[in-house]
Amino acid sequence: QDKLASANAAARDGQLTKPPGSLGRLEELAIWYRGWRGGDRAEIVAPQIIVFAGNHGIAARGVSAFPVEVTAQMVMNFQLGGAAINQIARCMGATLDVVPLELDRPTRDFTTGPAMEEPDLVAALRAGWEAVSSESDLLVVGEMGIGNTTSAAALACALLGGAPSDWTGRGTGVDDAGLALKANVVEAGVARHGGAGDGLEMLRRLGGRELAGMAGAIARARSLRIPVILDGFICCAAALCLERTESGALDHAVAGHRSAENGHARLLQALGKTPLLALDLRLGEASGAAMAIALLQGALACHVGMATFAEAGVSDA
Amino acid sequence: QDKLASANAAARDGQLTKPPGSLGRLEELAIWYRGWRGGDRAEIVAPQIIVFAGNHGIAARGVSAFPVEVTAQMVMNFQLGGAAINQIARCMGATLDVVPLELDRPTRDFTTGPAMEEPDLVAALRAGWEAVSSESDLLVVGEMGIGNTTSAAALACALLGGAPSDWTGRGTGVDDAGLALKANVVEAGVARHGGAGDGLEMLRRLGGRELAGMAGAIARARSLRIPVILDGFICCAAALCLERTESGALDHAVAGHRSAENGHARLLQALGKTPLLALDLRLGEASGAAMAIALLQGALACHVGMATFAEAGVSDA
Repeated sequence: QDKLASANAAARDGQLTKPPGSLGRLEELAIWYRGWRGGDRAEIVAPQIIVFAGNHGIAARGVSAFPVEVTAQMVMNFQLGGAAINQIARCMGATLDVVPLELDRPTRDFTTGPAMEEPDLVAALRAGWEAVSSESDLLVVGEMGIGNTTSAAALACALLGGAPSDWTGRGTGVDDAGLALKANVVEAGVARHGGAGDGLEMLRRLGGRELAGMAGAIARARSLRIPVILDGFICCAAALCLERTESGALDHAVAGHRSAENGHARLLQALGKTPLLALDLRLGEASGAAMAIALLQGALACHVGMATFAEAGVSDA
Repeated sequence: QDKLASANAAARDGQLTKPPGSLGRLEELAIWYRGWRGGDRAEIVAPQIIVFAGNHGIAARGVSAFPVEVTAQMVMNFQLGGAAINQIARCMGATLDVVPLELDRPTRDFTTGPAMEEPDLVAALRAGWEAVSSESDLLVVGEMGIGNTTSAAALACALLGGAPSDWTGRGTGVDDAGLALKANVVEAGVARHGGAGDGLEMLRRLGGRELAGMAGAIARARSLRIPVILDGFICCAAALCLERTESGALDHAVAGHRSAENGHARLLQALGKTPLLALDLRLGEASGAAMAIALLQGALACHVGMATFAEAGVSDA
């Protein structure tokens, strides 16, 4: 963080034509954003959304309401512009990049061994790292991957403790039997891998390529001073792996929304993040975080564009 | 509401490439919006924001942290483009109209008599009615008026009951003594006027011109089938006067946000409205509701632009 940029932003905020603090969270966001961007770079004109896709060995266990082919089909839908995230990206003036990660080579079923070997993890982290444009001024990451709420639940359970049922939810819409099965799969995965290493090692053992892609992109954004909006449960589980490897690794990130997936509220609390939106979304593909782009744009537009009391000739309190 | 348009929207929603219900509140918003617009009118391309301004006799009692001149000074700031709402309107692609209502003729101090005579009320309602453009496809109304949180608190207290302190808050930032004074003024106003008539009569006795302007605009939007986003405490108090005059008068309106002003959460509950945002704003001037324009735009963009399962060749659950 650029302490001078933060201090300048806070000073400017105090002079704008509004009662002090009356823009609430928008004021905090503007000051935080300027601190991370540094210098005078304050407007958001080039937001980038990246959706990573991957397939999961555990999908064969029947943990999802949808068949595994849907991952590739939805990637095609993203590429042709027909998914929710395409529409939201257009609304927000954001670029959208779709990064499918070896969809015809699913990860290993983590109840039988580590989801990924080290070269696979490194390749996915690198794909995430390389997907971030240095020209972006805001990054949103999201995912598509049938079975990945189960992977995310296993990561949260292994890294944060609690019962498997605390972290498992209905995902795209499993029934009660599917939910019980998910909890069993999470339990078996955590029993096999829990405590075997730090956040990145858990990401390798219980995660997936799209989760690693998101983690790589979030880390890259930090090095480029690009603030990040985190999406839902799976994105936050990937982010948790970074935070548990290096405390403070998510200081350049805000939580875009609280999803309807069971476990997300608890995960946000563990990350110390207060979500900007809570609209009961549970779609993934970066949709919730992308909706929050408008809030950051609005916050910065006010910060940059408003007149001061002196400029406008308005009497101060 | 156009029941056929609602039914068509709900049917389309069920075919879009997402798990059923996974866009949460965005799906409800899209179906609600299409029901009110009717026919096939579904995209939001012409949102209109109107900020009404008025002055209050009770301001002379010292109920605000700011001097009464600030109402006119802020109107000038709106007209020159320097206020928060100007920046947010630009971000959202919305037109902004500013309607000052006889700023040099404040309402009467409502502790000494009705705030307005009938011709004043009618003129302000009419100004609101006439300010709505028939070309708009979404309306946001807001206000500026030193002293108007006290007026809004008196309206809420008179129409909904409870103690004056349930409804009074710090507004633009009064201290504890100012807060106690506000509660006293509210108590005196309610003692004088409470129970003397319906919502519109209370609006005349305890309200103000900018509140009547908002009420007139909300009613006009209904007749033009233009959905409305309600702003904060004062806007909702004006809306309450309509609802208490004619039950269901706000069915074409959603709550844009829950402000930090004490009493707004309770008022929203009384109106049966769940806010879209809760970012601790307490600025007024339509700022919170205007931020929520992006959420409605995103909801409709998804509804209109997404591919169906059949179109995209994606396997259904």
